[in-house]
Amino acid sequence: MSEKRTALVISAHAADFVWRCGEAIALHQQLGYEVTVVCLSFGERGESAKLWKQGGMTLDRVKAARRREAEDAAAELGAHDIRFLDLGDYPLELDREARFRLVDIIREVQPGWMMSHSKWNPYNTDHMYATQVALECRMIAQAWGHNPGQKVLGAPQLYLFEPHQTEQMGWKPDVFLDITPVWEKKRAAIECMEGQQHLWEYYTNLARNRANHFRRNSGGQAGGRNAEYAEGFQSVFPRTVDELT
Amino acid sequence: MSEKRTALVISAHAADFVWRCGEAIALHQQLGYEVTVVCLSFGERGESAKLWKQGGMTLDRVKAARRREAEDAAAELGAHDIRFLDLGDYPLELDREARFRLVDIIREVQPGWMMSHSKWNPYNTDHMYATQVALECRMIAQAWGHNPGQKVLGAPQLYLFEPHQTEQMGWKPDVFLDITPVWEKKRAAIECMEGQQHLWEYYTNLARNRANHFRRNSGGQAGGRNAEYAEGFQSVFPRTVDELT
Amino acid sequence: MSEKRTALVISAHAADFVWRCGEAIALHQQLGYEVTVVCLSFGERGESAKLWKQGGMTLDRVKAARRREAEDAAAELGAHDIRFLDLGDYPLELDREARFRLVDIIREVQPGWMMSHSKWNPYNTDHMYATQVALECRMIAQAWGHNPGQKVLGAPQLYLFEPHQTEQMGWKPDVFLDITPVWEKKRAAIECMEGQQHLWEYYTNLARNRANHFRRNSGGQAGGRNAEYAEGFQSVFPRTVDELT
Amino acid sequence: MSEKRTALVISAHAADFVWRCGEAIALHQQLGYEVTVVCLSFGERGESAKLWKQGGMTLDRVKAARRREAEDAAAELGAHDIRFLDLGDYPLELDREARFRLVDIIREVQPGWMMSHSKWNPYNTDHMYATQVALECRMIAQAWGHNPGQKVLGAPQLYLFEPHQTEQMGWKPDVFLDITPVWEKKRAAIECMEGQQHLWEYYTNLARNRANHFRRNSGGQAGGRNAEYAEGFQSVFPRTVDELT
Amino acid sequence: MSEKRTALVISAHAADFVWRCGEAIALHQQLGYEVTVVCLSFGERGESAKLWKQGGMTLDRVKAARRREAEDAAAELGAHDIRFLDLGDYPLELDREARFRLVDIIREVQPGWMMSHSKWNPYNTDHMYATQVALECRMIAQAWGHNPGQKVLGAPQLYLFEPHQTEQMGWKPDVFLDITPVWEKKRAAIECMEGQQHLWEYYTNLARNRANHFRRNSGGQAGGRNAEYAEGFQSVFPRTVDELT
Amino acid sequence: MSEKRTALVISAHAADFVWRCGEAIALHQQLGYEVTVVCLSFGERGESAKLWKQGGMTLDRVKAARRREAEDAAAELGAHDIRFLDLGDYPLELDREARFRLVDIIREVQPGWMMSHSKWNPYNTDHMYATQVALECRMIAQAWGHNPGQKVLGAPQLYLFEPHQTEQMGWKPDVFLDITPVWEKKRAAIECMEGQQHLWEYYTNLARNRANHFRRNSGGQAGGRNAEYAEGFQSVFPRTVDELT
Repeated sequence: MSEKRTALVISAHAADFVWRCGEAIALHQQLGYEVTVVCLSFGERGESAKLWKQGGMTLDRVKAARRREAEDAAAELGAHDIRFLDLGDYPLELDREARFRLVDIIREVQPGWMMSHSKWNPYNTDHMYATQVALECRMIAQAWGHNPGQKVLGAPQLYLFEPHQTEQMGWKPDVFLDITPVWEKKRAAIECMEGQQHLWEYYTNLARNRANHFRRNSGGQAGGRNAEYAEGFQSVFPRTVDELT
Repeated sequence: MSEKRTALVISAHAADFVWRCGEAIALHQQLGYEVTVVCLSFGERGESAKLWKQGGMTLDRVKAARRREAEDAAAELGAHDIRFLDLGDYPLELDREARFRLVDIIREVQPGWMMSHSKWNPYNTDHMYATQVALECRMIAQAWGHNPGQKVLGAPQLYLFEPHQTEQMGWKPDVFLDITPVWEKKRAAIECMEGQQHLWEYYTNLARNRANHFRRNSGGQAGGRNAEYAEGFQSVFPRTVDELT
Repeated sequence: MSEKRTALVISAHAADFVWRCGEAIALHQQLGYEVTVVCLSFGERGESAKLWKQGGMTLDRVKAARRREAEDAAAELGAHDIRFLDLGDYPLELDREARFRLVDIIREVQPGWMMSHSKWNPYNTDHMYATQVALECRMIAQAWGHNPGQKVLGAPQLYLFEPHQTEQMGWKPDVFLDITPVWEKKRAAIECMEGQQHLWEYYTNLARNRANHFRRNSGGQAGGRNAEYAEGFQSVFPRTVDELT
Repeated sequence: MSEKRTALVISAHAADFVWRCGEAIALHQQLGYEVTVVCLSFGERGESAKLWKQGGMTLDRVKAARRREAEDAAAELGAHDIRFLDLGDYPLELDREARFRLVDIIREVQPGWMMSHSKWNPYNTDHMYATQVALECRMIAQAWGHNPGQKVLGAPQLYLFEPHQTEQMGWKPDVFLDITPVWEKKRAAIECMEGQQHLWEYYTNLARNRANHFRRNSGGQAGGRNAEYAEGFQSVFPRTVDELT
Repeated sequence: MSEKRTALVISAHAADFVWRCGEAIALHQQLGYEVTVVCLSFGERGESAKLWKQGGMTLDRVKAARRREAEDAAAELGAHDIRFLDLGDYPLELDREARFRLVDIIREVQPGWMMSHSKWNPYNTDHMYATQVALECRMIAQAWGHNPGQKVLGAPQLYLFEPHQTEQMGWKPDVFLDITPVWEKKRAAIECMEGQQHLWEYYTNLARNRANHFRRNSGGQAGGRNAEYAEGFQSVFPRTVDELT
Repeated sequence: MSEKRTALVISAHAADFVWRCGEAIALHQQLGYEVTVVCLSFGERGESAKLWKQGGMTLDRVKAARRREAEDAAAELGAHDIRFLDLGDYPLELDREARFRLVDIIREVQPGWMMSHSKWNPYNTDHMYATQVALECRMIAQAWGHNPGQKVLGAPQLYLFEPHQTEQMGWKPDVFLDITPVWEKKRAAIECMEGQQHLWEYYTNLARNRANHFRRNSGGQAGGRNAEYAEGFQSVFPRTVDELT
């Protein structure tokens, strides 16, 4: 078991993980990781406009539809597990008990790295709230006095995945991941989001342009890696290494 | 030759590389890298107070003494090569020709990574100037039209080593390097700096405290790596990877 | 009705809107806008020192006095409407229900632009809290699943009006508004604030100096607009235009 | 003549203006502006890799090819004028005389707005140097004692066009321009850059994704403008207005 | 009584004040100040790993042990008073009533200056929360309408003491305090923290290196004060003076 | 002589010191300091619009007029000395020899504190250049190898005085100086600037409003010092103290 490699993605709304780090999930599954996704809410109130524009919609029907889409996308990506905490959105709020549920999952997964939203987002306060909660729950999971006897958390990196309109969020990627080998999986996952077809092209464009950034930073015109699709991430914590590269 | 791993350290004054990245040099030499150090000046005017306080000192004698110390330190660290451009200090200034000399060295070394000072330094404008020059010369070395036919530079990382009074310089390390195996070499190199004994303890304290940061970020109380000495660096450019860790 | 132009000012305490954007209110009313002001609290505990220094004061009497002043000022400015949510101050706190009341107002007004406090304020945490709430409620008002069937909010700009001690708050104006034509109204509104006479001169000085900034940025010594009074604002969101000016 | 509307784009290398603000040029020409482009260099050494990879290339041949491409692109965009200062690149350097030549052009054009590169660029120091020069020359052009008797410059906005890898440059757009009506012109201009076909798709993707940002900020899901292509810009100076929008 | 000089340190967990400002407490006591320490929690869950690793531990036993250590350390430092609010940690949360208890203490102490944690801390959200609370309660303590009749608070400075891994927290010291005369007291206080022996050396190293910074900023090689131990602090508010020094 | 207290103000153009720190000069002279002012240029090209608008003006006549005004203002303020380096403006440029002249003055004065412009100024690049030069020359003046035998400089604070449009310059005051006792001197000095009457009111307003900030930070509504006029400054370096206040 000490060999098992794991990761945990904390998504404010059901679809966020698909657009923003779908490839990272698929790629790491392929590398042998078990990647767990936690959806704090379904995005049922705030990110389901297309459903609400239909007649006769109820909150439960929206949640069910969003859940189904997220499960389908997670399956396309090969995610190890997906959990829905159903905590409500717009606004998303986690009371002490809800945060402890998230801590339980963190301890259960013992992630090698964690991933969530950008630190600042004036368009979507749920997103930055999710990151604040991720940091707080990471801290609680490290506390020897929280459920004494449980295995405490180490010091996993927290990556921040790419927000919409990166510059407005003050998000700055410090690592680009070549996801060329799994691109088809991400595209398939994206297409599970039937209500947001206008974003399919958007995220395909983005992945192709991030690949240009990958190439620039891995050799440039002198011959960088020929990545075709990439995703970028921002690290919250410093790395610890035995060699600089 | 394609296997050769190389690195280049650009030091504004003769001693800077010892205090700030001596261990990184020693460690990478041990890992099989060829690390070249370029000293843009000897620090003969501004960083040789102890020598100037002696009687009968001349600029040439100061330069010679500083050069000897730097060579000795480089030898203790096992550096592959050390070059002295003798461009003058306080202020350090590189005209077009001097910058092209630095570009020549960059192209000759073809470094896998480069290293220099922090971006901002109100105490020591030579330091931030050296970094500005490092960025400019990295760019020129990438130009296919500069000395056409020469091998152009790829896209090496530029690491910024630790300045004195980090917080005043806006320097933030994003990578900690465990240099426990080579600590004795750094200590020996530091002790070559006979004129600055008060800094021997300073940098030993620092390396031990940075090891605490290393441990915090590699597992913390749940069992991080037991590093005893470490150095921190800030990256200018994003990394390109196949796996998040 | 599609022609109606509207704006919404969210003021943490009863008097804030007068000092900080009184002229913007008066000017836009004159331009045909309907400007609604929401006072989240009366500033009864924390911004009514002069009243509390009088004998026999009670919370209700302070609230009543502050309300009267704010209503008088709003009348001087010609504001379309003023609402008092009476949520308490020092600290100001909005529970879920209170935030939904604010969302109701936002949806009712359907503002073309919104306005609130600076993002950071170490002197007055109510102020920065009001801005955080404004962003959160703007987001909720855009949610198709919040009170389905209601008209959802578009994407109005959120302007941040000028805080006291701008530099300490990290506030940076990106737009200056010439309020020369309505200055007398602002002065009259300011004078409704009987308990704070020492600020009358302060804000008059400020408006005159901001006019100097207006002139600098509209032509300078080569002939800028001769504004005599101005107000500055910071935009949270980017603008969308058909022409650069 | 007081009716003439003018703009000035300052491009470090010959092609920069095409990728980064081609549409803004075409659009404003269509709106009746006279847009002048100044290319400080041809990018002959540093941005012409494809040409240098051919046999028998000389600096003059590269310059001629780059000039032709830039002229063709300017023609496709309908630019009023394009000037080549031929000041050399990698590194670009303007001595006093060269800066005064740029001042002469600024005064001749009397631009309603100016445009140049981002403030920071660790990959390409020529780019940030061009912006520094643009600010300095704008200031000189405003000086009544510089060539007394000439018409001095007013206070035009300086827009910063989009750099490659925006987040690494600290560039944050505060205005999005809908360039749907002139997209075909930009595409045609881009295709004049024969040596950089890999960037054709990149900038087309970018323009489409920026249109998504335009829509988000002009109404979002409640019905923003249906822009299909957009460009973003960052303003250096505050605006002066008569009405907030 | 007008002569009495006072200070208030707000510590998220029981031990924080020892490591981070122990010397400032001891020194100011020696200067005649009455320094009160408020521990918002005991750090019983999150900062007592060594105790929890022992068998048969309970929350109450941990709290008691932590309290004893903190009291001993406060005694070594000569602190005037230490209060334990026992509000729980990991996460620390203060409801309205708890914040009013803190306001009561602030008003009772009437501190000449206050001190707390850094503004940002992704490792330990309790720390940044304590600072947020300190600012909010400082504001409430200034409100004439909070417990009318009580003496309101003036405008004391809020100093932020040194966090672990300063650069990750964005903490920048703007004042260094020479604590050479009281160093032995801090060392004795540190040694009261029996569970954290690995930090004894860490904070001794730190104090010695901060003394180097003190010397650099008080004269440097031209003869600064020969401080041997120092502590650094960041000020939140500007100072008001009669003379620049 | 060891008792002599000294200060040095480095002003890019002849009038800058009057508007921006006139009171600090007058106050410190009154406190027994010898304050020397260095004007790097006369502002003859860029800050003398009114003179150039007159007929028959020459560069020499403008310089003479600006010099006279500056000398008169310095006399009103009681400045110990004023030096004119006549290095030209718009742009201001100091070659190595000119910087060494400034170093000579710094060493001659041996200032207890130095003062110059803000770090960033997109409107006036001469201003930020002057600060860059001030930092560089401070460093050179500390070098034991620069003119060996001369008394080297210690580590004086560098204060940045208030720029026009503070928020655009990223300038943040951390110290407010009560200059009520010498206000009449500043007003008299301001009135020496005959060509800029429109700024007399501006800077009077500013000094009165800064006094409001002084009061806020020295006690607020609980009874701060009743300053009537104040100036604000930003410190570049940390302070070293024996007591926190």
